[in-house]
Amino acid sequence: MTPDDIAGFFATRRDLDPEAYLELVFDFECSGDPRAAAAHLCSEQSTAQWSRVGIDEDFRPRFAAKVLELDATPRPRFSIPVDGVPETNVHACRAVIAHPHGNFGPRIPNLLSAVCGEGVFFAPGIPLIRLQDIRFPSSFLAAFEGPRFGVAGLRERLRAYDRPIFFGVIKPNIGLPAEPFAELGYQGWRGGLDIAKDDEMLADAPWCPLAERAALLGAACRRAAEETGEPKIYLANITDEVDRLVALHDTAVAAGAGAVMVNTMPTGLSAVRMLRRHARVPLVAHFPFIAAFGRLAAYGVHSRVITRLQRLAGYDVVIMPGFGPRMMTPEAEVLDCVRACLEPMGPIKPCLPVPGGSDSAATLETVHRKIGSTDFGFVPGRGVFGHPGGPAAGARSLRQAWEAIAGGIPVAEHATHHAELAAALAAFGPRR
Amino acid sequence: MTPDDIAGFFATRRDLDPEAYLELVFDFECSGDPRAAAAHLCSEQSTAQWSRVGIDEDFRPRFAAKVLELDATPRPRFSIPVDGVPETNVHACRAVIAHPHGNFGPRIPNLLSAVCGEGVFFAPGIPLIRLQDIRFPSSFLAAFEGPRFGVAGLRERLRAYDRPIFFGVIKPNIGLPAEPFAELGYQGWRGGLDIAKDDEMLADAPWCPLAERAALLGAACRRAAEETGEPKIYLANITDEVDRLVALHDTAVAAGAGAVMVNTMPTGLSAVRMLRRHARVPLVAHFPFIAAFGRLAAYGVHSRVITRLQRLAGYDVVIMPGFGPRMMTPEAEVLDCVRACLEPMGPIKPCLPVPGGSDSAATLETVHRKIGSTDFGFVPGRGVFGHPGGPAAGARSLRQAWEAIAGGIPVAEHATHHAELAAALAAFGPRR
Repeated sequence: MTPDDIAGFFATRRDLDPEAYLELVFDFECSGDPRAAAAHLCSEQSTAQWSRVGIDEDFRPRFAAKVLELDATPRPRFSIPVDGVPETNVHACRAVIAHPHGNFGPRIPNLLSAVCGEGVFFAPGIPLIRLQDIRFPSSFLAAFEGPRFGVAGLRERLRAYDRPIFFGVIKPNIGLPAEPFAELGYQGWRGGLDIAKDDEMLADAPWCPLAERAALLGAACRRAAEETGEPKIYLANITDEVDRLVALHDTAVAAGAGAVMVNTMPTGLSAVRMLRRHARVPLVAHFPFIAAFGRLAAYGVHSRVITRLQRLAGYDVVIMPGFGPRMMTPEAEVLDCVRACLEPMGPIKPCLPVPGGSDSAATLETVHRKIGSTDFGFVPGRGVFGHPGGPAAGARSLRQAWEAIAGGIPVAEHATHHAELAAALAAFGPRR
Repeated sequence: MTPDDIAGFFATRRDLDPEAYLELVFDFECSGDPRAAAAHLCSEQSTAQWSRVGIDEDFRPRFAAKVLELDATPRPRFSIPVDGVPETNVHACRAVIAHPHGNFGPRIPNLLSAVCGEGVFFAPGIPLIRLQDIRFPSSFLAAFEGPRFGVAGLRERLRAYDRPIFFGVIKPNIGLPAEPFAELGYQGWRGGLDIAKDDEMLADAPWCPLAERAALLGAACRRAAEETGEPKIYLANITDEVDRLVALHDTAVAAGAGAVMVNTMPTGLSAVRMLRRHARVPLVAHFPFIAAFGRLAAYGVHSRVITRLQRLAGYDVVIMPGFGPRMMTPEAEVLDCVRACLEPMGPIKPCLPVPGGSDSAATLETVHRKIGSTDFGFVPGRGVFGHPGGPAAGARSLRQAWEAIAGGIPVAEHATHHAELAAALAAFGPRR
């Protein structure tokens, strides 16, 4: 690129119609001139050749992505060894780029192709890059449905206000036939779960078919709701081939599932958007595959971007890697994803963040404190279904922990009068 | 895990029915005992809690993933800085794991959830892991359709044998209205392209609607075929929301597209499998997003795994990052992906590998030599549509380069008698 070519990919915000552009925040490491690298990054993700041979034309004013901000700091070498790019004149950069969404329209696959595609990951001189964030103008958001229920709608369904929503992943997650599996769910609800759920690895398996499972869990759920006087939800994992999603939703819901879960990236965000238009119950996201591109600080796509897209696609609940070393996710990143669920997003309703991973009554106080509000879901697996007293005791231990937190009583003190909580702290709390 | 628990996740091949398991090859870096880490990796990706509380049962024999091979080499520290995992007793490991596919069945989203999911990327003690390869038993493969046409079917459609298939990406990729866009395609076919294609960033945009584009390109394609006496294909990019794929396929094909392209990961592998059941023309894969998890040696998912899954989902052609520093992909990895397209795969037909990235007549000989056969597609963009003599000259330069290669004549020598080839070498060849 000539210096003139490079200049064609820079702009200031006041020159652009903000409604016509997405804003993308990238961190990247480049070799050579950072301005040239940033211009290449824009060119490759938009109009890579901006005129025909022999014709005086320039598609950049309308169709090019443009650098709005660029900060570059020299560094001695790339933070991760890379192939094929000379390690000379290395800079760590942050670039804010305006990308004209009219290039593709309000369609998730085309959006992903533009902002996480060849243009981003194969820009000359940029071997390491991470898409850190994405911001949408309201004209773009207006084309999406977003959550049908959102946080408020889910709370109404459960009549659960001013407290976290208590989920539990029924365990053993793989191998149990439908009947004993349903019995575990029933015990969990009786003990105090709002939502008993399938593991994300359990789908429509011949040894535990979804139709049979949903019928048994649905019946158990209704029984538990009658006996406890509280609404209860069975959350069925309907992750499956795209052309079965609608039918599995219908099967599960007819049998008694009050919400359905989809593993987002394995199934596809666009398929979820399709399901959203059909679904009559809350949609819950699970996070397989996101870590494959989300976890490293210097490369890939920040999980907050996928959280935003999950909300846009129409999920009411987003399960995400939570706090603590077990989930190997920096606390700031978990909080970024929590905020991406809850903060204002034009006409798109908030969805419930559920940061999870090896939780139990012993971790509830910490999670609540870090999030700083009650607008979250709490999703133990073994913390409920591996509780030494069984699932009802496990669920009860969660409610007891919450009583303590809500009442301003130290959880350990509360445990001295509550056996299930005491057993949970002994089994799952920090080793002494 | 106790030593007994760990032993329950190890097995030898002769103890297992090979038809019941996928084989997964992982490279990982762990802290602590490598055997414990490998057992956790198996447990987390299969039956994470293998019995109910208070019940003497063990789901591991049928449902657990099992370590078949484990090699561990001590190393001083992790190869990429990681969060939350102590850097003590670090090992680099290769593990071959047998994963029982009966846990989920022949469904792509459930397969991805198991082999690239929470269990893999959040196994205790394993902060860095890459799924290097996946092998399927024939009982599993038998449930998939695979390519309808494959390499042989595509060659028959084009009556092009014993040579590479010449693709060209029409450029400018973004911004041109349908009419001049079709004129460029026509010139490319007249010059010798077999297949003129949309860029992966160009979809059904209001300023160049697919229906109009396909009608004009379809007409241009028929005209070029009549005039040259060679079959020609317009390859339409139908990447879009999942619930529009079938309709866009029908629109494009009715108007004259001879093949359709989908950006695999942005759209979803499962959606492609759905499309395959409906499609009546060859399906072509493009690679946006794969680099986000595929490019680092120490983390993510090797692109060969996605290549295999693309073939399984039914693509006839897989476009992939090609050779040379521009695509920042090690040569061995490109060749791994090429082989994954062509090597035997039970009843699944081969698909055509198209390694691409800044190609032109100047790179054809190298690509052919590295691949070592004619079973590949060659896909310049600017190498044809940015040729100083225009697209027809650009396409002609490819055919001239191939004449030289097939005839055993040095390409540079052939160029002395062939102006378009000489111009291509001057414009795109190595700088002198």
